[in-house]
Amino acid sequence: MLTLKALRLIHDCQVLAWPAPESGTGLAWEIVRGHLREDSTQERLPLRMPISVDPFPAQQAYDESARLLDRELRSGKSVGVLCEGDPLFYGSFMYLLERLSGSFPVEVIPGVSSPMACAAAARWPMAFRSEPWTVLPGTLSEDELRQRLRQPGAFALMKVGRHFSKLQRVLEELGLAQDAIYVEHASRPDQKVEPLHEVEAQEVPYFSMILLRNA
Amino acid sequence: MLTLKALRLIHDCQVLAWPAPESGTGLAWEIVRGHLREDSTQERLPLRMPISVDPFPAQQAYDESARLLDRELRSGKSVGVLCEGDPLFYGSFMYLLERLSGSFPVEVIPGVSSPMACAAAARWPMAFRSEPWTVLPGTLSEDELRQRLRQPGAFALMKVGRHFSKLQRVLEELGLAQDAIYVEHASRPDQKVEPLHEVEAQEVPYFSMILLRNA
Repeated sequence: MLTLKALRLIHDCQVLAWPAPESGTGLAWEIVRGHLREDSTQERLPLRMPISVDPFPAQQAYDESARLLDRELRSGKSVGVLCEGDPLFYGSFMYLLERLSGSFPVEVIPGVSSPMACAAAARWPMAFRSEPWTVLPGTLSEDELRQRLRQPGAFALMKVGRHFSKLQRVLEELGLAQDAIYVEHASRPDQKVEPLHEVEAQEVPYFSMILLRNA
Repeated sequence: MLTLKALRLIHDCQVLAWPAPESGTGLAWEIVRGHLREDSTQERLPLRMPISVDPFPAQQAYDESARLLDRELRSGKSVGVLCEGDPLFYGSFMYLLERLSGSFPVEVIPGVSSPMACAAAARWPMAFRSEPWTVLPGTLSEDELRQRLRQPGAFALMKVGRHFSKLQRVLEELGLAQDAIYVEHASRPDQKVEPLHEVEAQEVPYFSMILLRNA
């Protein structure tokens, strides 16, 4: 689900950087590697970031990554940074952008974000006509979730992972669990789409989402 | 911002359909026409829909479009339907999906949706960490808008068009206008990004959005 515009930039930049786990290549690289030109002289720059169940890598990792990018940019090279999903939607690129945009021109290329991928997998109409549509991270407190979910509209619950039981409990309490849809690893070969009430796990993967509607 | 996956389907389907205005080719067609194979024997099927300031074309137009698609599908042909943005995010494809998915297998390919395109144009961080993110159609009442916007989080106000003055008034009342960003025709050659308080129009194009944060 790479865009033509992103692919053009990936081919044209002199340095290609991407957020990578502490060892190995990481998902962003796996997605694009088949699209890279084999004869390319492009430099490759993995940005090592602690990726874990906890989605907030230390500021220190962003500082270090920004320093690496800064060095390339100062030497006059064009740098492309890969992002999974959309770069500005709960994405780690935002933390690099705030560190670099004062010193260098930055162009952001939007991407297909995970709620859209999950809705497509489930063929779930995300939002109709005048319906408010709200994305709630599973990290919110039960009170906060309850208060938001009581309002009419359509919802995507992100960052479900280890917050799954809490989310399920709140949705059941509010009578919203019955028609909610659970989506895991959307667009990947191991993609799973299930009615929420059929999911038996207590904890689910980080790349999972719950879609629902308070009609 | 077409995806590689969408392009593959556009090339492979036997019939290519798209929502078109009552006369002329329309934006969806203009976006893909440069990517089509010239020697293609693909059939082309514009779905004529009343597109106007009012974003709700009659159910009748959807019935008629679904009938045209049904005829092609029943004859055994594969049909691709173009959508601007994401097909399930306030998109007219949802109304075709509900009419056809009972009778035929449908695959939905997610797309880059307009809030992501607008945020990229403005280099605006859409949502951080545990921040709720809410999309509000400008068609909502002032009371409804006020109540939603009072809650902390990040917001995208869509379908601004002729609701611009109302939205501006509500945001000013709540003290949220000062830091809001106005984006018009994101990703198009006539794209415009301005602080909301500098916009002087009373009415703006349908393809415009306001991005803001109640921090």
